[in-house]
Amino acid sequence: MENREISKAVITRLPRYYRYLGELLESGVERISSNELSTRMKVTASQIRQDLNNFGGFGQQGYGYNVKYLYTEIGKILGIDRQHNLIIIGAGNLGQAIANYANFEKRGFIIKGMFDINPRLIGLVVRGIEIRGVDDLEQFIKDNDVQMAALTIPKTKAPEIADRLVNAGIKAIWNFAHVDLNVPDDVVVENVHLSESLMRLSYRVCSMQDRKKEEERKARGES
Amino acid sequence: MENREISKAVITRLPRYYRYLGELLESGVERISSNELSTRMKVTASQIRQDLNNFGGFGQQGYGYNVKYLYTEIGKILGIDRQHNLIIIGAGNLGQAIANYANFEKRGFIIKGMFDINPRLIGLVVRGIEIRGVDDLEQFIKDNDVQMAALTIPKTKAPEIADRLVNAGIKAIWNFAHVDLNVPDDVVVENVHLSESLMRLSYRVCSMQDRKKEEERKARGES
Repeated sequence: MENREISKAVITRLPRYYRYLGELLESGVERISSNELSTRMKVTASQIRQDLNNFGGFGQQGYGYNVKYLYTEIGKILGIDRQHNLIIIGAGNLGQAIANYANFEKRGFIIKGMFDINPRLIGLVVRGIEIRGVDDLEQFIKDNDVQMAALTIPKTKAPEIADRLVNAGIKAIWNFAHVDLNVPDDVVVENVHLSESLMRLSYRVCSMQDRKKEEERKARGES
Repeated sequence: MENREISKAVITRLPRYYRYLGELLESGVERISSNELSTRMKVTASQIRQDLNNFGGFGQQGYGYNVKYLYTEIGKILGIDRQHNLIIIGAGNLGQAIANYANFEKRGFIIKGMFDINPRLIGLVVRGIEIRGVDDLEQFIKDNDVQMAALTIPKTKAPEIADRLVNAGIKAIWNFAHVDLNVPDDVVVENVHLSESLMRLSYRVCSMQDRKKEEERKARGES
């Protein structure tokens, strides 16, 4: 499995399959056909078959997919069967929102520590995790075998902290700071740029409005 | 401009161009060539030319792009030159993080109200915005000419609230709840599924590790 190359587009869709399969499991569904899954997920059945064929032999003709098996296998591919030790840099609202999201832990993401530079936050405890200053960041990463860091700090501070994280051995950065980070090839960065997401929403609602106005104008016989 | 069809892939990239152009503007850069922009953004120059050609005539051969003009035009395309009245449903950490993000307001996203069902939050004030109960949600949307809603509530409550929002005239939902919403065709939804993003990070760091192990195994002469 590890040697198989899976396209980026498929990988992007896997977490969504994982979510739907998890919901099916919770509601006691054992088998599902690509057609049923297609209706639920609003993806074509052929897309589903194509995507899931990447992992070979999950589905059987006329029999459907074994939900639990597929859920488990996709979980393995996504690395959710392993434990990931995580720290959160930035203990503001966003950092605390992440710390409070219990589901992450269920999926193997263990929050080992939280850090901030704001003296008013240092020493506070969020969901059993004490907020620390960044002075002992490197030591903490070593002592707690941390590989992942969520970066929920302003963009001005992010590049400097990212450098420190990388030097201390962090291999994965979940970056919420609104800046692109420069990291070595063996470090992965997943960006969550909220304002870019909001702009895409704005674009879509505006072009919808413009299209509507245009249609109304045409309906009134104006050119 | 409004009639031109721009591909989804280009739209997805526009907010990033907008961010880089904004940073250039702030640092006083008036013109930039596609080659320079390419180096900064780590995108090929031909990709940049192709993307920006969609909007016609921004760049001039041997002269570069006018940063301010391009910034303004992309802003218009993204609808950032208009005012968007926004409410936030869910005043927990994530909702408060959004309310506290001052940059949104600078880009025309005006937060008119915050709502929650938790009685301990109702009545509190975040950045000058009072948290309200959801009882008067529909009336508030009408009174304040709200078109957009950020949904930062648990997935169990999200579909019901989304229905109420749509019935009250909301045209755009920024959905942080971990569920796909069913909305009519004239309502747009932009999803931010944080746990899916974290799983993509997990996948990428795991496949990096596996690849490394494989290489080490080969280097040791094992097959």
